[in-house]
Amino acid sequence: MSARTIKLTIEYDGTDFHGWQIQKKNNRTVQGEIEKALQKILKHKIRVIGSGRTDRGVHAVGQVAHLKTSSTLPALTFLKALNNHLPEDIAILKVEDAPDNFHAQYSVQGKIYRYTILNRTAPCAHLRHLINHFPYQLNVAAMRQEAKSLIGKKDFKSFQAAYSSWRQSGSTIRTIKRIAIHRKDDFIHIDIEADGFLYKMARNIVGTLLDIGTGKLPKGSIKNVLAQKTRTAASKTAPAKGLCLLAVKY
Amino acid sequence: MSARTIKLTIEYDGTDFHGWQIQKKNNRTVQGEIEKALQKILKHKIRVIGSGRTDRGVHAVGQVAHLKTSSTLPALTFLKALNNHLPEDIAILKVEDAPDNFHAQYSVQGKIYRYTILNRTAPCAHLRHLINHFPYQLNVAAMRQEAKSLIGKKDFKSFQAAYSSWRQSGSTIRTIKRIAIHRKDDFIHIDIEADGFLYKMARNIVGTLLDIGTGKLPKGSIKNVLAQKTRTAASKTAPAKGLCLLAVKY
Repeated sequence: MSARTIKLTIEYDGTDFHGWQIQKKNNRTVQGEIEKALQKILKHKIRVIGSGRTDRGVHAVGQVAHLKTSSTLPALTFLKALNNHLPEDIAILKVEDAPDNFHAQYSVQGKIYRYTILNRTAPCAHLRHLINHFPYQLNVAAMRQEAKSLIGKKDFKSFQAAYSSWRQSGSTIRTIKRIAIHRKDDFIHIDIEADGFLYKMARNIVGTLLDIGTGKLPKGSIKNVLAQKTRTAASKTAPAKGLCLLAVKY
Repeated sequence: MSARTIKLTIEYDGTDFHGWQIQKKNNRTVQGEIEKALQKILKHKIRVIGSGRTDRGVHAVGQVAHLKTSSTLPALTFLKALNNHLPEDIAILKVEDAPDNFHAQYSVQGKIYRYTILNRTAPCAHLRHLINHFPYQLNVAAMRQEAKSLIGKKDFKSFQAAYSSWRQSGSTIRTIKRIAIHRKDDFIHIDIEADGFLYKMARNIVGTLLDIGTGKLPKGSIKNVLAQKTRTAASKTAPAKGLCLLAVKY
């Protein structure tokens, strides 16, 4: 029946979604819209499995999902049909046949998130939904230096959201492989690559790095925050609209 | 009374505006929103003069306008106050004191428009409002070659909208100083610099260049279109959402 495993690479503007995952409430979600489009194309209900959830308001240019189907539609036809049936705030970038044992969630090796800050006095009208406008001066060198303390296999409990319906009850140990902080003109990109992210971990890390950048938190603070293993040790969660799932690694 | 001339540099996402200029109907316009914000700040009605109109749905990152005021508010305070009172689809990028004789419309030396095409099969969710998604193959070298026929002082009557409430009744002679067509990854930018643009001229030029790019129109077509001096000679108007006023030269 389901002879085929299809891998989707998905871009979305998270602004008008209640995140990736279908919810009991009738909220608009990316997964829900993709399943609706697939149902129109394939004429039956179909489940799409994503690499993981993204929060309400968070974007993606490299979310990955898979589905099982007996359809023989060529990949390119599938891609065009999906984009024709999807709302404009979701774009299917790639449709590929994948090995039978490929699983968008269980096969994940790592994820890369990018947080984008517009660091100048004037806001930006064109990209307003995709960036966090932060008009105060930031010491990027200090942020970069301090971010080094986050690299490696560590307990990131301090950076996990304190309350959540989908908080992991399991281990809070994760491995951050890389944090790169670049300024290009007025934009600052913070790229974080890890084997996995706890709920709101990326945004809580960014919030804490912003406090380093403004000087609100002194040098050495990240080590201290990590050691405390409690959410109250870290700074405010950075706004969702600056965050984008860049890529999922398999 | 009006001791001061202030020059504004303005970015806007044209998607939800009926163009730049205030209309008799109560439509949402960029000029209208800026005048409303100024009234809140200065506590009296004030007129803002733009470099010229932009069509419904057309964007800007370098629209320029001026106003006369007796306010002594420092430029930076003005900038912050304006951005605080404006909706997020307008951003004031610069506020500068200008010479008394500066006039945003009459002092214009030239304008640069950029048209952005996404030339690939898959659409783009993040930039969907700011680009024209054109999924068919384009011969950029042919477009670039043909565009050379547009350079110089010429009668652009064939590229002026046939019917319009604000059609210029005057000369249709304009000077195009430069057309640059660049591909960067899947994006094609068409930059057009002229001393002035007729109504829908930029979008009609782009529509015709697209027909050159697909091969629908043969080499030499632009010379032929120019010679005919009638709108029906040129191709379909390219969609507004790909067009952006990059800069106004004084």
